[in-house]
Amino acid sequence: MATTVRAAVCLCLWLFACQVRGSHIPAEMNRTIQSLLQHYKITSRERFDGKPVFPSDQNKKMETKLIFMGGVLESYEKLLGHMLKQLPTPSPQITGSNAQPGSAITPASSSTNNAGSVAGRDVRSELNYILKKVQELKKRRYHEEEKLLQGLQTLRDIKMNDRIVQSKALWQLPQLYEEASSLPEIKIQRRRRRRRQAKAKDRTRA
Amino acid sequence: MATTVRAAVCLCLWLFACQVRGSHIPAEMNRTIQSLLQHYKITSRERFDGKPVFPSDQNKKMETKLIFMGGVLESYEKLLGHMLKQLPTPSPQITGSNAQPGSAITPASSSTNNAGSVAGRDVRSELNYILKKVQELKKRRYHEEEKLLQGLQTLRDIKMNDRIVQSKALWQLPQLYEEASSLPEIKIQRRRRRRRQAKAKDRTRA
Repeated sequence: MATTVRAAVCLCLWLFACQVRGSHIPAEMNRTIQSLLQHYKITSRERFDGKPVFPSDQNKKMETKLIFMGGVLESYEKLLGHMLKQLPTPSPQITGSNAQPGSAITPASSSTNNAGSVAGRDVRSELNYILKKVQELKKRRYHEEEKLLQGLQTLRDIKMNDRIVQSKALWQLPQLYEEASSLPEIKIQRRRRRRRQAKAKDRTRA
Repeated sequence: MATTVRAAVCLCLWLFACQVRGSHIPAEMNRTIQSLLQHYKITSRERFDGKPVFPSDQNKKMETKLIFMGGVLESYEKLLGHMLKQLPTPSPQITGSNAQPGSAITPASSSTNNAGSVAGRDVRSELNYILKKVQELKKRRYHEEEKLLQGLQTLRDIKMNDRIVQSKALWQLPQLYEEASSLPEIKIQRRRRRRRQAKAKDRTRA
């Protein structure tokens, strides 16, 4: 009970703070998360164990921050997919319910049934709604980052034990090693050139 | 035989081209790769099937190019680790051999024995040498990228089916969604500010 109250209070505070500074999170999304937290209940000790699922972003550059955030959204997409899969198959009654995410939360929402519904609210539709919001944001704002993350995924999918792959990779190594060695140098050269140009401009101004 | 000759000729041409434009690849490394290709022999049809292990980099920005290349080096590290594991356990005789990578290649090097040695050359020490070169480059030039890749790895390691993880992730979602929505805007604002400053400088000059 204490966890639920704490969760509700914190989310209300968050909602308020977001409204004050102009939030990007729709109120309906916030309410749906709050409702889902009633279903996915854990103790305070479990929630505040000092080990957040997503660590705070340690990247300093904007580009790397965006890529990491693209990765976070990708993880949420997978996680919500897993959560949806774990829900019991909906019975015909539940499938026919018209529960919509964002409707008023009943105080008795802590009681859940086997089909994943929380006091008349359909957990499945709520998870689908959150998933849709995450996917929309990822598609709209993280298109470039998504391409890089897909590229990194293809690297992870390499069949490391395949002899043909091993030979082909050895074959590609001289070219890639050369490229990998020169890229950081090109970056430094570009930065130096930009600095020189900026200094030259300043001198012309003076 | 045709594959071997083709491989040798192409690598010699590559070596020559690298020498002309000032390569980053030590000659010893090039020779070791050439020698390893004798051990990891495949047919021309297998090698030139139009499906390279590492696709050409489609990223346009220098930052993303560097991250992708960091991923390529990471993959080589894993791949070489797999190749080393696949080698048969060295017999006392082979362990005691003083074969060094970079020594002259014997024409009879195509004949391999079960312990992974190519005509007196130790495949294990050659793979270890290449692995060391890759690790050195990664550590020296791709330190920042490595940190991001490790961060992305922690995201992939999230226990998606754990109920506590699911609840904690839902809890973190409002904050992360807000951050993910605002980051691209901050980037655009910074870019605009920089452009305005550059224009203002140009005007002052004029």
